[in-house]
Amino acid sequence: MRVTPWSVEGEIDYNKLVREFGTMMINDELLARIKKHARYLHPLLRTGYFFSHRDLDWIIDKYEEGERFYLYTGRGPSGNIHLGHILPWIFTKYLQDTFNVNLLFQVTDDEKFLYNDDKDMDEISKYTYENILDIIAIGFRKEKTKIIVDTKHIDRLYPIAIEIAKRITFSTIKATFGFNNATNIGMILFPAIQAAPCFLPSKFEGRLVPCLIPAAIDQDPYWRITRDIATKLGYYKPAQIHSRFVPGLGMHGKMSSSIPETAIFTTDEEDKIKDKISNSFTGGQATMKLQKMLGGNPENCPVFWYLKYMFEDEKSSDDRYIKCRSGSLPCYECKHALIDKTIIFIKDFKRRREEAKNLIDEYMLE
Amino acid sequence: MRVTPWSVEGEIDYNKLVREFGTMMINDELLARIKKHARYLHPLLRTGYFFSHRDLDWIIDKYEEGERFYLYTGRGPSGNIHLGHILPWIFTKYLQDTFNVNLLFQVTDDEKFLYNDDKDMDEISKYTYENILDIIAIGFRKEKTKIIVDTKHIDRLYPIAIEIAKRITFSTIKATFGFNNATNIGMILFPAIQAAPCFLPSKFEGRLVPCLIPAAIDQDPYWRITRDIATKLGYYKPAQIHSRFVPGLGMHGKMSSSIPETAIFTTDEEDKIKDKISNSFTGGQATMKLQKMLGGNPENCPVFWYLKYMFEDEKSSDDRYIKCRSGSLPCYECKHALIDKTIIFIKDFKRRREEAKNLIDEYMLE
Repeated sequence: MRVTPWSVEGEIDYNKLVREFGTMMINDELLARIKKHARYLHPLLRTGYFFSHRDLDWIIDKYEEGERFYLYTGRGPSGNIHLGHILPWIFTKYLQDTFNVNLLFQVTDDEKFLYNDDKDMDEISKYTYENILDIIAIGFRKEKTKIIVDTKHIDRLYPIAIEIAKRITFSTIKATFGFNNATNIGMILFPAIQAAPCFLPSKFEGRLVPCLIPAAIDQDPYWRITRDIATKLGYYKPAQIHSRFVPGLGMHGKMSSSIPETAIFTTDEEDKIKDKISNSFTGGQATMKLQKMLGGNPENCPVFWYLKYMFEDEKSSDDRYIKCRSGSLPCYECKHALIDKTIIFIKDFKRRREEAKNLIDEYMLE
Repeated sequence: MRVTPWSVEGEIDYNKLVREFGTMMINDELLARIKKHARYLHPLLRTGYFFSHRDLDWIIDKYEEGERFYLYTGRGPSGNIHLGHILPWIFTKYLQDTFNVNLLFQVTDDEKFLYNDDKDMDEISKYTYENILDIIAIGFRKEKTKIIVDTKHIDRLYPIAIEIAKRITFSTIKATFGFNNATNIGMILFPAIQAAPCFLPSKFEGRLVPCLIPAAIDQDPYWRITRDIATKLGYYKPAQIHSRFVPGLGMHGKMSSSIPETAIFTTDEEDKIKDKISNSFTGGQATMKLQKMLGGNPENCPVFWYLKYMFEDEKSSDDRYIKCRSGSLPCYECKHALIDKTIIFIKDFKRRREEAKNLIDEYMLE
């Protein structure tokens, strides 16, 4: 298992990750505290998809004391958006709605340019535009959401980034991200650019504002070094809520743009969605006969996973689980169900993506 | 001898520096070419104060082909401005007037913040403001001069800086600037920020514009790495014209803000100027008797140096040289001459510095 912000390899042991990273598991007590303020406990919380945190309890303390926190998350625009990206954003919207808070959404075009030898700024800018449409299509509250694009808003980020950078040595960056002497100097500074939004509202409002970051756990190294220097700089440590990785439609690994046949993009045509899901790996047995005899493995099945996390309520999902286990549910039925629901979802998402084209200015930080 | 952009130590052997850095001496042929376009050959050129270059001949080729270059120089705002700073700026004005070209003047507030552990941004910003008054007081042409402050104009610099940064590894930076694992990540990126103005006009005008950098030779490492990557990025290599260091009023070393008694600041009061010059090291002998017997050493005398480079024409300076050598000129006479001229110069400079307060907006890049 190897988890960095740029790649996730091997079988993921989330318990081990929590121990190694030194984060905390989200326990029932914490879930109960969230539920107290929410209309409902989001399935992504209930089912442990968001499973780990740093200082989430402190964020709720602050909230209960009447101190409004804000949400900060981001996207590196190196390709199109797929369901694996969208899921944490849907959860972020839930947090925004539940706590009625502001959201800063950072688009790290600089990082993607610096990281990819084969990508020029024109290509990155194209994805920046396309990805912003997806972000807006999620339905974040217009008046409470600001999108930052690093190269566009660097004037706001850089003054804070150099405060941060002054406190971080190359040794720290090497140890945290596995950088070496061949790493380019833009990548070396970048962690300070990604950390800057953690302090941006505090800096500009001239008072301390707590920050909560919903993101997959592979981003944790950024917040670890940010937390290490926050107090020295006179800011709150940013709190986090960490998700697991979204599985791809292949046998292993997270949904990834680099293996497009395992990922459903928001721009995919109906035929492509049908093909990809039809060809998906499942938790089913090799033959119908074996399936009836042994039952399927829904825990291991991306088709079951997507139906459960994106499209079905607890009861329907539990029914499906039992039927699969018992061997009475052939894989094609689940695939058809996922195809139908995904096609409807993507069709609607595409419509909102189209509408987003007229909303960019309203969502962008001025 | 140790020369880096942050410190100059030991007895400077300029011939050795030219060999080590791989620059070219300015020869008589090149001086003749400059003179062809100038009304006069500036004393700082004639006397070899600006002594070394990279591609200055190419810049003149381009100029003669009708391609207008621009000048780029800079200032790190970590303290007040003294005569040692002003001298290359006066020369830069000469180049601007002679060739009728634009000037970009970069104020690297980010670097000074990142480099000095004990300085916060408030202090750096104070010096940024004060130093800008000095820059304007030099009398650069308003319509052909733009001042850039890194943290204010980072939106223009950063997109180019990341193009540059992508091509520079930590190895290169380590070897060029002597950085190590304890260097902060802001300093590590900074060479890309200082390199960015070399390409700024080309980027924004959408055509290649040659760039000539007048600066002391300790800044050369920045331009060496910039030149290495310029062609790969599709830009011209920046050309340079290098000066020697300005001597302090002490026995050795360049005029330096860190030894204020050896430096005359543009903000110094008359009494202070008088005291500092009166206490200056000179090339004179220990007693008047010895002076009359052996004669003085004007080559080694900062008082002679300042009179020659800042205040006297060739003939007066040569007279002074001969008289000093012959022993007929006591040091106090030279000191008085320098005190009188410096007081007049600083008085006038202060007046222009006051006027500069109303000109800042006109000089700043919008």
